[in-house]
Amino acid sequence: MLTVNEPGLDTSTILKYLCLEGYTVVACAIDIGQEENWDEVKEKALAVGAERMIVRDCQKEFVEEIVWRAVQCNAIYEDRYLLGTSLARPILARELVKVAEEFNCEYLSHGCTGKGNDQVRFELAWHALAPGIKIIAPWRDSAFIAKFQGRADLFEYARVNNIPVSSTPKAPWSMDENLVHCPYEAGILEDPNTAPPKKMWKMTVDPIDAPDKPGIGRVDIVENRFIGEIFKNFEGWVAREPKESRVLTPPLRQSNLAHIDLEGLTLDSKVRELRDTFVTTAWSRQLYNGMYFSPEREFTEKSIVAAQDGVNGTVKSMAYKGNNAYTVGRSSKTSNLYSEEDASMDSLDTFSPLDTTGFIAIQAIRPKKYGEAKIASGNSLI
Amino acid sequence: MLTVNEPGLDTSTILKYLCLEGYTVVACAIDIGQEENWDEVKEKALAVGAERMIVRDCQKEFVEEIVWRAVQCNAIYEDRYLLGTSLARPILARELVKVAEEFNCEYLSHGCTGKGNDQVRFELAWHALAPGIKIIAPWRDSAFIAKFQGRADLFEYARVNNIPVSSTPKAPWSMDENLVHCPYEAGILEDPNTAPPKKMWKMTVDPIDAPDKPGIGRVDIVENRFIGEIFKNFEGWVAREPKESRVLTPPLRQSNLAHIDLEGLTLDSKVRELRDTFVTTAWSRQLYNGMYFSPEREFTEKSIVAAQDGVNGTVKSMAYKGNNAYTVGRSSKTSNLYSEEDASMDSLDTFSPLDTTGFIAIQAIRPKKYGEAKIASGNSLI
Amino acid sequence: MLTVNEPGLDTSTILKYLCLEGYTVVACAIDIGQEENWDEVKEKALAVGAERMIVRDCQKEFVEEIVWRAVQCNAIYEDRYLLGTSLARPILARELVKVAEEFNCEYLSHGCTGKGNDQVRFELAWHALAPGIKIIAPWRDSAFIAKFQGRADLFEYARVNNIPVSSTPKAPWSMDENLVHCPYEAGILEDPNTAPPKKMWKMTVDPIDAPDKPGIGRVDIVENRFIGEIFKNFEGWVAREPKESRVLTPPLRQSNLAHIDLEGLTLDSKVRELRDTFVTTAWSRQLYNGMYFSPEREFTEKSIVAAQDGVNGTVKSMAYKGNNAYTVGRSSKTSNLYSEEDASMDSLDTFSPLDTTGFIAIQAIRPKKYGEAKIASGNSLI
Amino acid sequence: MLTVNEPGLDTSTILKYLCLEGYTVVACAIDIGQEENWDEVKEKALAVGAERMIVRDCQKEFVEEIVWRAVQCNAIYEDRYLLGTSLARPILARELVKVAEEFNCEYLSHGCTGKGNDQVRFELAWHALAPGIKIIAPWRDSAFIAKFQGRADLFEYARVNNIPVSSTPKAPWSMDENLVHCPYEAGILEDPNTAPPKKMWKMTVDPIDAPDKPGIGRVDIVENRFIGEIFKNFEGWVAREPKESRVLTPPLRQSNLAHIDLEGLTLDSKVRELRDTFVTTAWSRQLYNGMYFSPEREFTEKSIVAAQDGVNGTVKSMAYKGNNAYTVGRSSKTSNLYSEEDASMDSLDTFSPLDTTGFIAIQAIRPKKYGEAKIASGNSLI
Repeated sequence: MLTVNEPGLDTSTILKYLCLEGYTVVACAIDIGQEENWDEVKEKALAVGAERMIVRDCQKEFVEEIVWRAVQCNAIYEDRYLLGTSLARPILARELVKVAEEFNCEYLSHGCTGKGNDQVRFELAWHALAPGIKIIAPWRDSAFIAKFQGRADLFEYARVNNIPVSSTPKAPWSMDENLVHCPYEAGILEDPNTAPPKKMWKMTVDPIDAPDKPGIGRVDIVENRFIGEIFKNFEGWVAREPKESRVLTPPLRQSNLAHIDLEGLTLDSKVRELRDTFVTTAWSRQLYNGMYFSPEREFTEKSIVAAQDGVNGTVKSMAYKGNNAYTVGRSSKTSNLYSEEDASMDSLDTFSPLDTTGFIAIQAIRPKKYGEAKIASGNSLI
Repeated sequence: MLTVNEPGLDTSTILKYLCLEGYTVVACAIDIGQEENWDEVKEKALAVGAERMIVRDCQKEFVEEIVWRAVQCNAIYEDRYLLGTSLARPILARELVKVAEEFNCEYLSHGCTGKGNDQVRFELAWHALAPGIKIIAPWRDSAFIAKFQGRADLFEYARVNNIPVSSTPKAPWSMDENLVHCPYEAGILEDPNTAPPKKMWKMTVDPIDAPDKPGIGRVDIVENRFIGEIFKNFEGWVAREPKESRVLTPPLRQSNLAHIDLEGLTLDSKVRELRDTFVTTAWSRQLYNGMYFSPEREFTEKSIVAAQDGVNGTVKSMAYKGNNAYTVGRSSKTSNLYSEEDASMDSLDTFSPLDTTGFIAIQAIRPKKYGEAKIASGNSLI
Repeated sequence: MLTVNEPGLDTSTILKYLCLEGYTVVACAIDIGQEENWDEVKEKALAVGAERMIVRDCQKEFVEEIVWRAVQCNAIYEDRYLLGTSLARPILARELVKVAEEFNCEYLSHGCTGKGNDQVRFELAWHALAPGIKIIAPWRDSAFIAKFQGRADLFEYARVNNIPVSSTPKAPWSMDENLVHCPYEAGILEDPNTAPPKKMWKMTVDPIDAPDKPGIGRVDIVENRFIGEIFKNFEGWVAREPKESRVLTPPLRQSNLAHIDLEGLTLDSKVRELRDTFVTTAWSRQLYNGMYFSPEREFTEKSIVAAQDGVNGTVKSMAYKGNNAYTVGRSSKTSNLYSEEDASMDSLDTFSPLDTTGFIAIQAIRPKKYGEAKIASGNSLI
Repeated sequence: MLTVNEPGLDTSTILKYLCLEGYTVVACAIDIGQEENWDEVKEKALAVGAERMIVRDCQKEFVEEIVWRAVQCNAIYEDRYLLGTSLARPILARELVKVAEEFNCEYLSHGCTGKGNDQVRFELAWHALAPGIKIIAPWRDSAFIAKFQGRADLFEYARVNNIPVSSTPKAPWSMDENLVHCPYEAGILEDPNTAPPKKMWKMTVDPIDAPDKPGIGRVDIVENRFIGEIFKNFEGWVAREPKESRVLTPPLRQSNLAHIDLEGLTLDSKVRELRDTFVTTAWSRQLYNGMYFSPEREFTEKSIVAAQDGVNGTVKSMAYKGNNAYTVGRSSKTSNLYSEEDASMDSLDTFSPLDTTGFIAIQAIRPKKYGEAKIASGNSLI
């Protein structure tokens, strides 16, 4: 059983290597929205030596089980990264276990490098999903890495073994596209002080070159089920930063901002405070660290759901030239915390301004003691 | 002693009212970067009846004591609001106490409404800064609010008392500009489902109308002292949302994003995790809730400082047509956590891919137990 | 409608006062396990002027809805206080609203002082349970507090109005017993540097006087339903500290320790970490601050439940002379995380010691960078 | 360089093994308060083959740098464990690096098992303290563990190599005593459902056998420097639970409870809330996980210090027959938050009961909305 989600030189080499080591290989690729010619992938895998090449479409469960959950808890990692790659991993890992069981595979294998996060994500998921499963990680196998010390070795191996590879790599970086984002990494992108070349961007265009009209993205969030039409076919958007932790994800970001906006209208502020402090950060870390199939993610996810009961409504959101999508209207029929009348400065219905005097007096007890103590100790606050 | 930071119909009325009630009033306004004709303000205050009209420039301490601290802890409230208004309040409150002490004022007064947050911020700060001070809050005084039940009453009072007011209000909303942002609220903006009119925006233009070239904003963050040149004179930026909790603040946002970016290069990930979860949220809430002069803010601020020791470097950041400023380069001479060599997939120096096998085996203990327990209970994860 | 849970001089006075003010009063007391002669209470209330005196037994819902929930989340406030009083309030508040609705009462009234937490707890609960209800809080009513400025005034009022009061107060402190604890406050207990008199203790005896044999307390926690037999009839236990935030609660504490112990055997460590950091502290604060009937408590409680799925088992716990009950055995049939075999130093089944080498190598990356940076900056860690 | 802190069969075997492997071994033991005959330890180490046997006394820095810090942040792990063993590790690790540098040792070695936490603690500390140091961990060395598969192999090796061992082990468990606690583990203690034998306890006696008088423990906490006289020579105390995560530590616990009590008198409640939620849990986890010498511990510790400025005073604490030490008085001259006068129900100085009405009205806004929404959705709270 071999994952070939990003079918390229590495995966082809590993596939051939495993075949020559005596394994019967069921190759498997999963469609989570990336642009790929699946017929070509199949043909190539079989040519290299796979007994079968399975392609599965998991776009629906990817969006429904993971992406909307990420939107519901405003998932973000280190204030920046919307977790695009991490989000896809649990779906891939689970489908691969299903296929492995179907074809009675004894081993699971992947082509992830031995220094990255993805190997951790796949393998932790596999250990949870199929406790006892055996895993082959060639890039952590001494014999394999001794044999393949650089890309030249891979090309030479391909040549010798008749593995069809394009003589030039597609691009001087690697990509890992899915329905909600496309990160770029390695190669010329490794210098953090250099901007990536304009032609790198795949899903978006530079805002400078974007058309002079708002790109429309619609997010209707009704009855806590998301009905999004914002995915695919975007133009005029930009994801500016190419590397893993610096990704801006266009449609995911728009959903995310619309959801935050809707919560402003419908979510109690104290629930939000707890959710923001604890659920958002915990879920994001769990996904990032490959702990999706874990007791803590199950626990955290129940908390996400518990916080979203009343978050229903409609947000009109607009995108223009790479601007973070902005909201042009929001409303909720069922759970509107915001009352135009209450918010008005003139309304005296819910509470009286005079009540505020008492509120401030009670709240002032601690600051007053603090100011007095500062004066007493010779460190006046003024 | 009366705050007249936003000198308009309300403040003029309160000033006259206090004079007629027999108070000798020292009016005071503080320059924190708002656009204002201070000579006109002075002249008007004296004409209405103030004994003195003091204007103080606190822009420097506003930026140095508060704004950079907000940037240092990536302060944000409810995922959206960069706290622009809340940030200015402690500086205003403290300067007003200083002036009150200078002129031996027994009372402090402000014109904040009886239903908003600002009254709380001013008064809590005053109670800490000058424990025992007496406060007059006309909009929470029964006699005052009985007398002024609508804007018509204010206009009539102005007419009768010869208070110079423009016959038409400046705009059908209120503003509260400072060096880092300008929020708009009330009036026609109270419907959350309506976009604000284009002409409202004061600091920025609509991205659609913005010039077709990147607006340059530079943020050099060196040795933990910020040297910003991004404030003032912006064009091509947009703050799209007009109300309190929905403000996008151009120069503050750019500093903020640059800082987050620099932290990606220089801040240990576990320090960051703790700081993000607790310090950022705590400081933001304290400022929002008017608890700047409090033991908890002092405590939190020491934690902010403790986390920023090594956050030194240079970020090149670019702005274009309202896009969230993007970083086009970042570097640090002193505390670079990111090593191009370490990050490279080919380097084996710091740790071996084989170590990862052990790492994953230990990490997998819990997920494996979890998967086994799920199978045992008939709820397989697949 | 008047709460008379602690029927004494205050409550009798308020009852009479309300009658004389023209209100028809339905008095109501709720049995949550305190020692009380309910017949005498009834008789006295009717004698003073209540139209009815209702007594309700809410012990069962108190334990099932609140106490076990507190045990489940290891609720504790400021590392000390098991929240005994706060736990009872939601049950009392809700039952009072039910009775008020039954008898068509327009007002709810209580005898809490104007400076304590209990008034907040009752009134916030009432506002949530019966939005729009009108509340009479005599100890915050100007006329009432002007009339009753000291205990002498209360006694005089009782004399004049033929309210039967014992000529001497029961004790120079006040008590507020319920099924799980009995706090003492006010009077001679107000000096924090003085130990309370031995005779004060009601539920327990001084450990020095306790019998020389272990007092038995049994806590069987099976299938997440608690079957406790530890409540009532304790001897040999001590609660040493008398005031609100310094209460040690014997049977509640034993359940609590048994639960913590069971979690050590059954709860995943990361779920526990999240639960301990957020859920425990949030729920405890919500109860303490009177926010039981609130969106955030509902949210937090769903998280409690989500964390307790597998916490099933049996704990044998023993108490002796005021010692914090100690566990003498624990076991779980369904969800034992602890494997004697795994824990054994000799077993190599789940993972190999050699894996640890890789684990440590990966974990050491950050500390190593940290040590190197310290050396580079001249601040060696040695 | 070899750590021999718990000199027994294992360490002697490792020492001999390393000598025979050709290493020149400097053995080192560190006194952190355990009961040990250091002369015998020296003699034996030299007899087995160590070139030198160094003994260092680190009791002072153990208490001053670590134990008081643990008390200051109320450190506790999983609601139970006062971290006794974890606290000692950083001191041991650092002293060993110092000795290694003094004697130009190229390697550091320890005798920790390959499945426990201690190996992680020592090695992470060593990597931070001496980046680049080489570590020998025999119990994770394939050759070593192949040779020694059970205790019988160790005894046979000792016999063949003339290593002096007592024919019977001291006890059917292992101990790791230091100044503040003594944990017991392994052997017959591995069944969680069995109470340990009475004779196991070393520092304490069973409360049933304890003398019938209060054991005195004094903790004076003055000017934030702790002057403790509670360590050593305890009687009448009991630590009931023998295994790692279930240790009750007598003198440390008493200091801990006294500190919590003093904080009740001197620490602002909001600072405490933040400290409890974040600093206490973070520091405890860092110590437990061996991350003492790390950026996050440095950051967290600065936060601890920042929270303790005003925590000065005197606590009188008493211990009796294993009861958790209880406080019989507490006072503070410099930073008393608690005012007998303020706390009194009769005092009206700091705020008026009437203020509470406004406070409750503002606080009630959210619960009221919550109750209304529940009614509107047909889920009344009653």
